[in-house]
Amino acid sequence: MNLLVVGSVAYDTIETPSGRADAKLGGSATYFSAASRYFTDVGVVAAVGSDFEAEDRALFKAWGVDTAGLETIQGRTFRWSGLYEEDLNAAITRETQLNVFAGFSPRLGAAQRNAPHLFLANIDPGLQRSVLDQMDRRPGLVASDTMNLWIDTSKPRLTEVIRDVDALLINEGEVRLFTGERGIVAGARALLDLGPRTVVVKRGEYGVAVFDRDFTFALPAYPVPAVADPTGAGDSFAGGFMGYLAATGETGEEAVRCAAVAGSVMASFAVESFGLDRLCSLTAEDIRRRFEAFADLTRFNALGGGEGLPLRERDG
Amino acid sequence: MNLLVVGSVAYDTIETPSGRADAKLGGSATYFSAASRYFTDVGVVAAVGSDFEAEDRALFKAWGVDTAGLETIQGRTFRWSGLYEEDLNAAITRETQLNVFAGFSPRLGAAQRNAPHLFLANIDPGLQRSVLDQMDRRPGLVASDTMNLWIDTSKPRLTEVIRDVDALLINEGEVRLFTGERGIVAGARALLDLGPRTVVVKRGEYGVAVFDRDFTFALPAYPVPAVADPTGAGDSFAGGFMGYLAATGETGEEAVRCAAVAGSVMASFAVESFGLDRLCSLTAEDIRRRFEAFADLTRFNALGGGEGLPLRERDG
Repeated sequence: MNLLVVGSVAYDTIETPSGRADAKLGGSATYFSAASRYFTDVGVVAAVGSDFEAEDRALFKAWGVDTAGLETIQGRTFRWSGLYEEDLNAAITRETQLNVFAGFSPRLGAAQRNAPHLFLANIDPGLQRSVLDQMDRRPGLVASDTMNLWIDTSKPRLTEVIRDVDALLINEGEVRLFTGERGIVAGARALLDLGPRTVVVKRGEYGVAVFDRDFTFALPAYPVPAVADPTGAGDSFAGGFMGYLAATGETGEEAVRCAAVAGSVMASFAVESFGLDRLCSLTAEDIRRRFEAFADLTRFNALGGGEGLPLRERDG
Repeated sequence: MNLLVVGSVAYDTIETPSGRADAKLGGSATYFSAASRYFTDVGVVAAVGSDFEAEDRALFKAWGVDTAGLETIQGRTFRWSGLYEEDLNAAITRETQLNVFAGFSPRLGAAQRNAPHLFLANIDPGLQRSVLDQMDRRPGLVASDTMNLWIDTSKPRLTEVIRDVDALLINEGEVRLFTGERGIVAGARALLDLGPRTVVVKRGEYGVAVFDRDFTFALPAYPVPAVADPTGAGDSFAGGFMGYLAATGETGEEAVRCAAVAGSVMASFAVESFGLDRLCSLTAEDIRRRFEAFADLTRFNALGGGEGLPLRERDG
């Protein structure tokens, strides 16, 4: 197991301007697994209820994901119900039922405790902490995600997690909520000051900005002709991002830049269909082609770079 | 005169979270001139009132801008008063006084009528039309900008202008307002269907997306640490964009991509200070360095491109 994720496995009820789906398999660990498994060997830590469908468990197995940490607890699986109106960047939560996650206390096995890469997906920061603390050795890379709910209800515990991760993945609105800074640059700096080496700011249909101690990288989103359902885009991004880094075993600047592209590739597929449908059914060639499409989308080449600009030299 | 602009010259009163300025020199043709003159020889067509300050006219001359078309009319100069609240992407107009623009009917001289590049900056589409119709020959490149006011009040006349330009520069919100399409891709396609070869969608702090009949290009905005005043960012973008194309005399794909970067460079300077202050005082070296900063901001290089992605080949 090269990459371990702890997060939610859920049944989502989603309404967007394009349609509606009831009790579809979702959750942060699910989208993360579905995306990252194209890159590397993934194991999942999460809880599901006794109502969890056998075919959904089989799906994780079909992806090659290690489900030893997918614990079944008497009760109902986590449920989320959300609505997207005209602004597809912002989900309106109708209902969150923690259900089996309310009392979940994961106990990691030896393979999980030795995973060299760890992603603490969006889940109660107490659970994130618990998993991090159980690792036998510090993974080479630890990253985390969160959401407004935990910033509102568990900021001190969330802050303790952020202090201990190498990379924080966070939405632009959550940067503002957490730091009180309106500007993304000031907000990212405030988060870097807490401890992470890298802060990845997810900007929905506008793409992503990576603020690292040593560099800044920004990438627009892929111009998807019709976004069907933004649910899971952030977790799919995280799956591509961490999957790339875990597969290459690198964490340097060039790798982090490419990982952000890989994440954006997976997010762009995730939003093309409701739920996991598109994300589940990719070929390696689909992923390669979308990566190349990002390169083509963003390339420019003034001959000679800045020196090649046609500037009149008269200043002032 | 290589590049002619028709637009507004105004006195702006602006309030942002960073401060307030009263009756500062502004207007679409002013910002456009201030940015484009770094690249090429610019002439301006606009009206000012008898209250227009001699030092403001002198400023255009100091920039090397041809002011033969800057007509003084008895009355007051165009005035705009606006407010930016937390969302710096959206100006709230407090007051617009057309003043001398209410009855302005430009008569172009020979040099202006033969300009090889023309920009119809944000102004009444009737004025844009009048200038375009007076050209002795079709310029090699005609581009236009607009605003919600004209979409609301003069859509048929505005549509006639858009049909006749090579490139349309337009804000993301205005794409929605004009086309009724929520998604940027569908909105841009609808605008391309009207006639322009290129639609440049300005996305404020999120950058720019260029939809050309033959390609798509997207660029994030430069992460300016503290945005002082977004006024004129779009016109400064247009100045860099058109200035680059006019200076090189090219309109092919590679040139349009670089022109969008040059535009983004000028916009990033414009927002760093109130009014024109920063945009006015640049050196060629400042512009070159910021262009290189954009290249560094957006670069990524997976060895071998998509082929170099660390993908597990098992599909499905």
